[in-house]
Amino acid sequence: MTKILFRPQGKTVEVPDGTLLSEAILQTGISVNLPCGGQGRCGRCRVVIEQGVAQQRSTSRLSSSELEQGYVLACQTAVFGDLQVFLPPQEAIVRKLPSERAAVEIPALSVRCDWQKNPILRKFFLRIEPPSLSDNTTDFERLRRALTRQCGVRGLVAGLPVLRKLARTLRDSASPEEYWEVTAVVEMGTWVDEDSVPRLVDLLPGDQTVQILVVAVDVGTTSNVVYLADLASGRFVDAASAYNAQISCGEDVISRILYARKEGGLEHLQRLVVGTINDLLHELAERNHVDADEIYAMTVAGNTTMVHLLLGLDPAHIRLEPYIPTVNYPLPVLARELGIHICPEATVDSLPCVGAYVGGDITAGVLSSDMYQTDKLTLFIDVGTNGEIVLGNRDWLLSCACSAGPAFEGAGVRSGMRATVGAIEEVWINAETHEPTYRVIGDVAPRGICGSGMISLLAEMLITGVLDKSGHLNRNQAGSRVRVGEHGTEYVVAWASETQSQKDDIVLTEVDISNLIRAKAAIYAGFSVLTTSVGVDLADVEEVLIGGAFGKYIDIEKAIQIGLLPDMPWERFRYLGNTSALGAFTALLCRDMRRQVTDIANKMTYLELSADNRFMDQFTSALFLPHTDTTAFPSVMRLLNNRAVNRTLTGANDTGHGGS
Amino acid sequence: MTKILFRPQGKTVEVPDGTLLSEAILQTGISVNLPCGGQGRCGRCRVVIEQGVAQQRSTSRLSSSELEQGYVLACQTAVFGDLQVFLPPQEAIVRKLPSERAAVEIPALSVRCDWQKNPILRKFFLRIEPPSLSDNTTDFERLRRALTRQCGVRGLVAGLPVLRKLARTLRDSASPEEYWEVTAVVEMGTWVDEDSVPRLVDLLPGDQTVQILVVAVDVGTTSNVVYLADLASGRFVDAASAYNAQISCGEDVISRILYARKEGGLEHLQRLVVGTINDLLHELAERNHVDADEIYAMTVAGNTTMVHLLLGLDPAHIRLEPYIPTVNYPLPVLARELGIHICPEATVDSLPCVGAYVGGDITAGVLSSDMYQTDKLTLFIDVGTNGEIVLGNRDWLLSCACSAGPAFEGAGVRSGMRATVGAIEEVWINAETHEPTYRVIGDVAPRGICGSGMISLLAEMLITGVLDKSGHLNRNQAGSRVRVGEHGTEYVVAWASETQSQKDDIVLTEVDISNLIRAKAAIYAGFSVLTTSVGVDLADVEEVLIGGAFGKYIDIEKAIQIGLLPDMPWERFRYLGNTSALGAFTALLCRDMRRQVTDIANKMTYLELSADNRFMDQFTSALFLPHTDTTAFPSVMRLLNNRAVNRTLTGANDTGHGGS
Repeated sequence: MTKILFRPQGKTVEVPDGTLLSEAILQTGISVNLPCGGQGRCGRCRVVIEQGVAQQRSTSRLSSSELEQGYVLACQTAVFGDLQVFLPPQEAIVRKLPSERAAVEIPALSVRCDWQKNPILRKFFLRIEPPSLSDNTTDFERLRRALTRQCGVRGLVAGLPVLRKLARTLRDSASPEEYWEVTAVVEMGTWVDEDSVPRLVDLLPGDQTVQILVVAVDVGTTSNVVYLADLASGRFVDAASAYNAQISCGEDVISRILYARKEGGLEHLQRLVVGTINDLLHELAERNHVDADEIYAMTVAGNTTMVHLLLGLDPAHIRLEPYIPTVNYPLPVLARELGIHICPEATVDSLPCVGAYVGGDITAGVLSSDMYQTDKLTLFIDVGTNGEIVLGNRDWLLSCACSAGPAFEGAGVRSGMRATVGAIEEVWINAETHEPTYRVIGDVAPRGICGSGMISLLAEMLITGVLDKSGHLNRNQAGSRVRVGEHGTEYVVAWASETQSQKDDIVLTEVDISNLIRAKAAIYAGFSVLTTSVGVDLADVEEVLIGGAFGKYIDIEKAIQIGLLPDMPWERFRYLGNTSALGAFTALLCRDMRRQVTDIANKMTYLELSADNRFMDQFTSALFLPHTDTTAFPSVMRLLNNRAVNRTLTGANDTGHGGS
Repeated sequence: MTKILFRPQGKTVEVPDGTLLSEAILQTGISVNLPCGGQGRCGRCRVVIEQGVAQQRSTSRLSSSELEQGYVLACQTAVFGDLQVFLPPQEAIVRKLPSERAAVEIPALSVRCDWQKNPILRKFFLRIEPPSLSDNTTDFERLRRALTRQCGVRGLVAGLPVLRKLARTLRDSASPEEYWEVTAVVEMGTWVDEDSVPRLVDLLPGDQTVQILVVAVDVGTTSNVVYLADLASGRFVDAASAYNAQISCGEDVISRILYARKEGGLEHLQRLVVGTINDLLHELAERNHVDADEIYAMTVAGNTTMVHLLLGLDPAHIRLEPYIPTVNYPLPVLARELGIHICPEATVDSLPCVGAYVGGDITAGVLSSDMYQTDKLTLFIDVGTNGEIVLGNRDWLLSCACSAGPAFEGAGVRSGMRATVGAIEEVWINAETHEPTYRVIGDVAPRGICGSGMISLLAEMLITGVLDKSGHLNRNQAGSRVRVGEHGTEYVVAWASETQSQKDDIVLTEVDISNLIRAKAAIYAGFSVLTTSVGVDLADVEEVLIGGAFGKYIDIEKAIQIGLLPDMPWERFRYLGNTSALGAFTALLCRDMRRQVTDIANKMTYLELSADNRFMDQFTSALFLPHTDTTAFPSVMRLLNNRAVNRTLTGANDTGHGGS
């Protein structure tokens, strides 16, 4: 056994020889960020070994000065003797999404939905004659009898938590005339089977039929959103959102899957996401002066990995060929089984997934659009932490996921950050001086660049000639803004003096650019594979729907310029907002719509790109800006050629670049 | 707040002023017996206040010497200032039933039962082709598909615990040819609804179809019995029994209901009985070299209160007029919801009850007899901690419970004890000398008298003239054996020198006798009310079935002599053994029999005697030995008259007694 003292907390832990330092830290309960899930890729778990010697697997993310100062990566260091370790302050995970980014679309119920006719939950007000010696039926059978006689509802069942409080609730609800007056909250069959027996979810004193609170949850890899609704009126009530607390264990699904392999890792991830959802429920309950226990149903939309982690299912094989989830059609579970703080007997229903990387967020997204009911050839894209694409119409649906990586979420990019306060979200570059102007979320001094900022920056650099088509910075341009730094050639977006930290320049390196190009290339390759699979041309697509939490902030013009989106007339593009949350909301309120999500999942074909050679070919072709096949991007080429002509006319020269 | 130091444990607790001393003890975790549930009736929670003063509600069970020594009843003493309290050693609850009393009848399946045709559980061995890129169906849907194709079972559902281990189990079970070979344990619809969807209870690697372990549990107020069976062969495997650990919180159901009203009392009682069942399961698993997790179903038979306490349902209103349970037909629950250590997803099915004091032990008892299928007018009696009676035949069933009290279980009787080692179980009194001879369970020196011993003793005293018909001891008889002690007139069964403690004589006082007469009168009054309710005479009863754990040890001749059982030819009586356990076993193995228990519960009318004036009349008439109506006991009267004639012939005189 090895003894480790952690400073400045002063906590000590004993672990077997060979234990990873990151695991030892977790055992003390001290919080440590592992955005890459402990793969040694992100370099965020830097600690200093002050006394003792440990064995390091990898130091790749550490600079030479860090190595000199004794820094190691906790996730890459095994302990073999007593140590004293210093933990630097961890980057705080901002729980709240900044308000200007979290502005929630008020969802409207689709006109196709007749939610009132056949709701999943009903409340019944009952006046029940109390028992006597001549009518000594038990409490539960008395309630059943009243429900049948007064409301025509037969065969009620109930779980233990509600049976346990039955006697008390009935007797506490006696009216002055001594009748028992109660409100029965009844689930009218399950979401998928309305003919199954009605279930008593709760029993409340008096008449509380006025509203029936329910929630829809979008469980994203990065952020979670909860919509509170009233099923009695079909009305949206309120929404709240926050970062998924799992971020501390990995930025993307792959990192989380790796984290889940650790001892207790899966349980930890499950508790983290439930904690985030519970915090949001608490916030909504407080703000709306209701009790979270009076929320009686929950619908969840999330990608396949997020659904597995929420339910505590082993996600390991989602990552390994042939990429097999435990379940695509999760069965409903009870809130109390997950530790979710709504009514313990409330059903939590996860919308169906299609494959390892096309989940309930996408089936919900398609539901919230009308692409499954239209004749038009439609392309749906959800750009979140992953990029998922669906092509089709009312007759067929074909889907795939592009492992774009979390570059657009700020990971794997030196100055990258999530779209929170302090993030540069838009950049303009002066065509003459190549000096940038930028806009920062929250109008504060910048801390880094978020996804939309990166797209904007890439496009501006390309159009102004700071960047060439193969992703190399033009050292002859942009004066001191382009330079060779410790991590190679880079473009300075903001000088240290302009930033919040006053310490480091905010830069985009060629390595970052290469990561971003691969991300956009993966998504574009996805479009190409889907269309060629069904023998149509991308240009034949009649409508492009952009969904997902992040999609909303993409500037279509810029996204086309870097080749992330296909080059077609702007009027063919439509923003749908947070389609995952909107779909979950619709499926929550309307049993008919809930059935349609299952139909969508059944109908949708899933193309596994991880093992598709066509994808690799298309991906390689897309590793240029905007693309190797310039004919596919006529409007962008016109722009670039115009610039070249202008430059030639003004005597400028932008054809040379610093090497391939 | 008041601070209390408990000796000899040295534990301290702080409680609000006014807290009962018994509650304060419970808070420290020190075990204290409250056989009467804290009503101040049994006097077993005696403690000594060594320092400080407390307020006592009742001291009725304390002798003058105990009061002098500073004894108080913990359950009757409220604290209002710092105390030092001495806890005398507590009477240990012997966990194991003595083997000669716990000998379990090997149950046989009724010939009427076709359990093989339609079992509740089945095991299916499956060979499943593992997934590939071209067949990437999820694990669960792959399993469903295999079950449908290979076994014709459609629409499988599964709960979280089994889904959580699905991926691991499937991949760990790959055969050398790389097929996944697993055994699916499937519940084929619920016990009450075979058309409901099949449910995956567990998934095991390899072929484990050879046996399907299941258990039937008799949850008695006093003792619990677990029968282990194999549903694959329909074979009884083994049984184990122990006292219900709830005894420390009350000897009878009323005491337990009172205990359940305390803060945390219900949860404590629930944990205690689950603990007892888990101990028995562990014992059975060890002895039979199986894993308790491989037990896949449990059927429970218990009285209404025991079922409520096992499920954690509030029993308060079972005790209060008009005596209303929460539920008579408990819905199946999962083992994990109760904390029972079998397969977490196994169903625990409690057999239906009929009313507040006629429970699943009685419906199971009737099932295990053939009274519900015969034309004969049959009387079924279960003498346990309570006395429950059913009258009827194939056409109708009428039931009632007689609050006999726990006298026959040894409570409320000065030298009374449960039927365990050291208990006098049979007594003979010499008609001339009036000296007793007795037999002790375990052939050791006696510690007290158990129920069968008391019946035997009462009958012998009556027949030999030591006792008169109104229950008074004849001081002119029996020499020094009848005397006036501290608690009134008493008969000495064993001198202190013969006993285990060598300290106190084992006696039966007139107060004890009065308690026993009331107990037997209550049961006989039950017979009378049932028969008069349907307009038949007790003498018309064609068969009397004696069930229950205690019934087995009743000597019918003696029981008739004291007027506990009706005076009819011996050939009409039949012992059935532990009918509750036998019925549970039958209902466990056979779905058809399970349905018949529900039919029995539906068909049975419950007469609530607690509020029946006829019962009070009949009870009063039965407060004589054998009864006021001597014509109802011709054989006993002949015996008594013969004795009188013999006495007259020999010049003895036994007509006088010590007062009315």
